[in-house]
Amino acid sequence: MLPDIHRNESVFTWAAPPLKFGHGAIDEIGAEVAAMGAKSALVLTDPGVRGTGFPDRVREGLLGAGLKAEVFDRVAVEPTDRSIAEAVAFAREREWDCFVAVGGGSAIDTAKAVNLLTTHPGDLLDFVTPPIGAGKAPWLPLKPLIAVPTTAGTGSESTTICVVDLLDLHLKAGVSHPKLRPSLAVVDPVTTMSLPPQVTAASGMDVLCHALESFTSLRYDAKPAPEDPMRRPAFCGGNPISDTWCEAALRLVGQSLRKAVCSGRDLGARSAMALASTYAGTGFGNAGTHLPHANAYPIAGAVRGYRAEGYPEMPMVPHGQAVSVTAPAVFRWTYPADPERHLRAAEILSGQRFTATDGAEALPQVLTELMRDIEIPAGLRGFGYTEDDIDTLTEGTLKQTRQLAVVPRPLDRRAVAAVFSASL
Amino acid sequence: MLPDIHRNESVFTWAAPPLKFGHGAIDEIGAEVAAMGAKSALVLTDPGVRGTGFPDRVREGLLGAGLKAEVFDRVAVEPTDRSIAEAVAFAREREWDCFVAVGGGSAIDTAKAVNLLTTHPGDLLDFVTPPIGAGKAPWLPLKPLIAVPTTAGTGSESTTICVVDLLDLHLKAGVSHPKLRPSLAVVDPVTTMSLPPQVTAASGMDVLCHALESFTSLRYDAKPAPEDPMRRPAFCGGNPISDTWCEAALRLVGQSLRKAVCSGRDLGARSAMALASTYAGTGFGNAGTHLPHANAYPIAGAVRGYRAEGYPEMPMVPHGQAVSVTAPAVFRWTYPADPERHLRAAEILSGQRFTATDGAEALPQVLTELMRDIEIPAGLRGFGYTEDDIDTLTEGTLKQTRQLAVVPRPLDRRAVAAVFSASL
Ligand SMILES: [Fe+2]
Ligand SMILES: [Fe+2]
Repeated sequence: MLPDIHRNESVFTWAAPPLKFGHGAIDEIGAEVAAMGAKSALVLTDPGVRGTGFPDRVREGLLGAGLKAEVFDRVAVEPTDRSIAEAVAFAREREWDCFVAVGGGSAIDTAKAVNLLTTHPGDLLDFVTPPIGAGKAPWLPLKPLIAVPTTAGTGSESTTICVVDLLDLHLKAGVSHPKLRPSLAVVDPVTTMSLPPQVTAASGMDVLCHALESFTSLRYDAKPAPEDPMRRPAFCGGNPISDTWCEAALRLVGQSLRKAVCSGRDLGARSAMALASTYAGTGFGNAGTHLPHANAYPIAGAVRGYRAEGYPEMPMVPHGQAVSVTAPAVFRWTYPADPERHLRAAEILSGQRFTATDGAEALPQVLTELMRDIEIPAGLRGFGYTEDDIDTLTEGTLKQTRQLAVVPRPLDRRAVAAVFSASL
Repeated sequence: MLPDIHRNESVFTWAAPPLKFGHGAIDEIGAEVAAMGAKSALVLTDPGVRGTGFPDRVREGLLGAGLKAEVFDRVAVEPTDRSIAEAVAFAREREWDCFVAVGGGSAIDTAKAVNLLTTHPGDLLDFVTPPIGAGKAPWLPLKPLIAVPTTAGTGSESTTICVVDLLDLHLKAGVSHPKLRPSLAVVDPVTTMSLPPQVTAASGMDVLCHALESFTSLRYDAKPAPEDPMRRPAFCGGNPISDTWCEAALRLVGQSLRKAVCSGRDLGARSAMALASTYAGTGFGNAGTHLPHANAYPIAGAVRGYRAEGYPEMPMVPHGQAVSVTAPAVFRWTYPADPERHLRAAEILSGQRFTATDGAEALPQVLTELMRDIEIPAGLRGFGYTEDDIDTLTEGTLKQTRQLAVVPRPLDRRAVAAVFSASL
């Protein structure tokens, strides 16, 4: 036997919250919360989602089940340390037995942070992943959190992660712990019917990138074994279970994303995308996203004037756009790590056949065509970035250690900069 | 809108415990239990599995992590109300913070019952599903339960169900509640390496039947909506998530079961079967098993003299044999409910192509060939049953309401009797 230090990882892990999926699922939340023994629930959402009426429908369901319920609707579209502090201050005005997040990743991530900071002393930075924060693990019980994703994108309903914009540090950072995982995910495709096309497109690309990145991530057994099995990284790398889910998600996205963007009232396409998003969360969330997601943090974080159609009127690069803009260049670069896997992804996504002759171009081409059809910005210049920004962006990417750990090829500063250059 | 009473179900549910899978996973249990904050753990197993050394390896891991730990090794191969009472009495001699079940479905089901009955007053029948028992739901917190399946069969590590033989009533019955679901499943394929061929074959057929039954079960949206959404049946019926996992499990079983039976030291085949069994548990456990499993209860329950090679020397029909013996006749009978799905199952399992011309015979033929190759008894006469037993067996099947609810065709006494006759 080799000394332990040379041994490869031989174990992978997988976990997901219980799921309730289907039309009308949102109307069962009152009964679910009552069955947990809770007497009160705070619904967290953002102003845009509140306008759809769903958060108040959830509140009425809670009242109908005999619970106290209020709606907090000032979640920021991209949560910041300040917007979270506001939500925490609101939540602290009363004792809540349960939290219900209705919305995209922003609402669900905010609810995770509110749950953490109303049950624990300390502030957000105490819990943020090192080196940015102190990386404390929650040591007290949290309250039940029901996640109701309404954008068919984030997958946050299933993950242990809360992503937050640290305003003074100009950084996106994360808090991650199994206790932050929602206790139940309620996915009702009807809630996604009124999403504008641009939001459908961006969140659909986010789902697609979750699937492609997990599918091509470093295999779990290609990494060295951890010294302490209880301190495995948050992302365990590609494995047979994540593969199965990724393929199923890629198939659904390939068949339905264009339709969901162009014909928003098509319930079949909406259900397929809601299902694909659920797969991303429940199925392969912890295999790991890699370079496109690592790049998305500085791209979104360093935004200057860009405003996205269909989103609130403020400078922001929506997460799905920030993730997908470098995806073609990334998958051209990762191709040599596992050509067969990249060709297979291109095939599942497009329904076309590809061979080794198509090589590294197959997947980027399928992605570029899809992004053009659904009108996703295809270059960093679209967001206002130039050659002069590449150093800053590269710097930001290199801080995303969680993602970089499962990039399937050895990575250096030059490779990251080259991906950004190719994505201008 | 139609009155509610005519509305079809539009929601499905899905849940699975966190999973740790791979070689060496079994050696991380001490660290897992310590991380839960427990100070003591009771390992439950049967004498046969104890002989493999794995339960003591788990105990040593627990001691090594600074915990108190003991092994209870008198789990019955087919748990009865009496064998469970013995385990409960043993467990009550001390306060345990955590239970670890190492073995097949019998050890894991026994641990679920011990967990329930050491945390609640009352006896087993209070919790057994009606009409046989009182069907009480547990109202107090249970202890953490780690399930370590060592037979690549049951799927019990992921389910909410505990199956028990009620000796005086001559019935197999179940207890089912989400609180019974293990808090962690630890699957280490190495633990299955020393299973004798007959046990590998029977438990492999159990996995196969879980997949085929879930794949062909009544669709979740073909049933009427429940009046109370919190009182959905334990089995929700076939759905897109269960389909994905059933197909993945069928593929693995088709590729690896023969190899795992004939060449038990083939770690690749053993890993594939362990993975397939995990899929059965985590992927589609709650879609539902139907007629082959309903039939298995009276077949195992009414056993007279039959002894199975590779199993303890006592009259018993191993669960996997009891399940698979009527499977060919069942799937011939269910074929008209969804011909395409039955042909697809036959194709995935065999790697051959089938068309509508092959019809109802395709799947039974694939099953019969597989059962012959791995030497699974192909008829009820092999267990000592004759025409005279068909009434008794049919009677027993008709009591299995949980399974009967997801049979994909309207079912009556005559149809069940015909399946038994065809399976003699
Ligand atoms: Fe994302
Ligand atoms: Fe079974």
